[in-house]
Amino acid sequence: MEIPSRIVADAITQIARLPGIGKKTALRLVLYMLKRQSYVQDLAEALLRLIREVQHCKICGSVADQENCTICSNSHRDAETICVVEELPDLLAIEKTGHYNGRYHVLGGVISPLDGIGPEDLNLDSLMSRCEAGDIKEVILAIGTTMEGETTAFYILKKLEATGVAVSTIARGVPIGNALEYADEVTLTRSLAQRQPLRDE
Amino acid sequence: MEIPSRIVADAITQIARLPGIGKKTALRLVLYMLKRQSYVQDLAEALLRLIREVQHCKICGSVADQENCTICSNSHRDAETICVVEELPDLLAIEKTGHYNGRYHVLGGVISPLDGIGPEDLNLDSLMSRCEAGDIKEVILAIGTTMEGETTAFYILKKLEATGVAVSTIARGVPIGNALEYADEVTLTRSLAQRQPLRDE
Repeated sequence: MEIPSRIVADAITQIARLPGIGKKTALRLVLYMLKRQSYVQDLAEALLRLIREVQHCKICGSVADQENCTICSNSHRDAETICVVEELPDLLAIEKTGHYNGRYHVLGGVISPLDGIGPEDLNLDSLMSRCEAGDIKEVILAIGTTMEGETTAFYILKKLEATGVAVSTIARGVPIGNALEYADEVTLTRSLAQRQPLRDE
Repeated sequence: MEIPSRIVADAITQIARLPGIGKKTALRLVLYMLKRQSYVQDLAEALLRLIREVQHCKICGSVADQENCTICSNSHRDAETICVVEELPDLLAIEKTGHYNGRYHVLGGVISPLDGIGPEDLNLDSLMSRCEAGDIKEVILAIGTTMEGETTAFYILKKLEATGVAVSTIARGVPIGNALEYADEVTLTRSLAQRQPLRDE
């Protein structure tokens, strides 16, 4: 197949490098863009700002436009609670629930000796400083339930013991809407052990 | 949902304007891009070149980097045959077969009175000039089989009559691999009327 323009062919190649986007979709997107000058201008500028201007929030380690992200600078959010997550998508998943109004702390990963990631590679020092500063009442660990995630959670728990901050973890159990018979044994065992008094809420 | 950076939120919005890409996919793409500075630089530049440098080929009306597209400038391709298509995707579909080695002519649409598109809105004058120049032996019409497409095909046939260039149209009939019982009546009627002598190829 000969594409009559190298520039068009290049654009297809670049777009097809995105995850989940093949050559066929890339071609379709390029044909769409060819007729939309001002949109493509806006899109390209948005992408360039993404890599040139987005930085890590000095407080929580999330993405930010200035020194601090909009969540850390938002005075309407509870400044006494920190939810610790692995990465930005986890933060966004919790934001999407609309049921958390505290601040965050993004670790940038979990302790994983096999991948050569130790505690010193994570955004942990600033979490300690935040907790030692004395304004924090509770740290909620919202870390994945993998072996590495659990290791990281216990590591943080130990580190925070001296600060006197309450440390909790999000509940693990049978997901809402799931039939019990499909829950795996480990989850079911844990959800039995950590059974809750039934309240009339 | 509060995204901690306006720039990140903007990039998601811009990407989600692409056809077939929703907010969720856009978010996934942005998260992928955030960690890939040099790739995003390349991508943004490819997109900007797309709208700044791509032009219409002066000969065939397809996309081109310079005055003429790579197909029109390719001396290895048969310069005596022109395949007329509606739009660039049609050209690419034919290129993909790998069984056409002539040149092209991109109309930029079809005659459609309901949409206010007349012959004067199409890239027809340059097709006439190409045929009148005398080097063309055959014009193959590869236009859609809609009412508008057929109208356009007959219009071109009439216009080219005076030039003495042979005009053909791609075969219409039952697609390869289709069971006969699922072919629609019009297609089946036409494929009966235009039956071909069976050759041992």
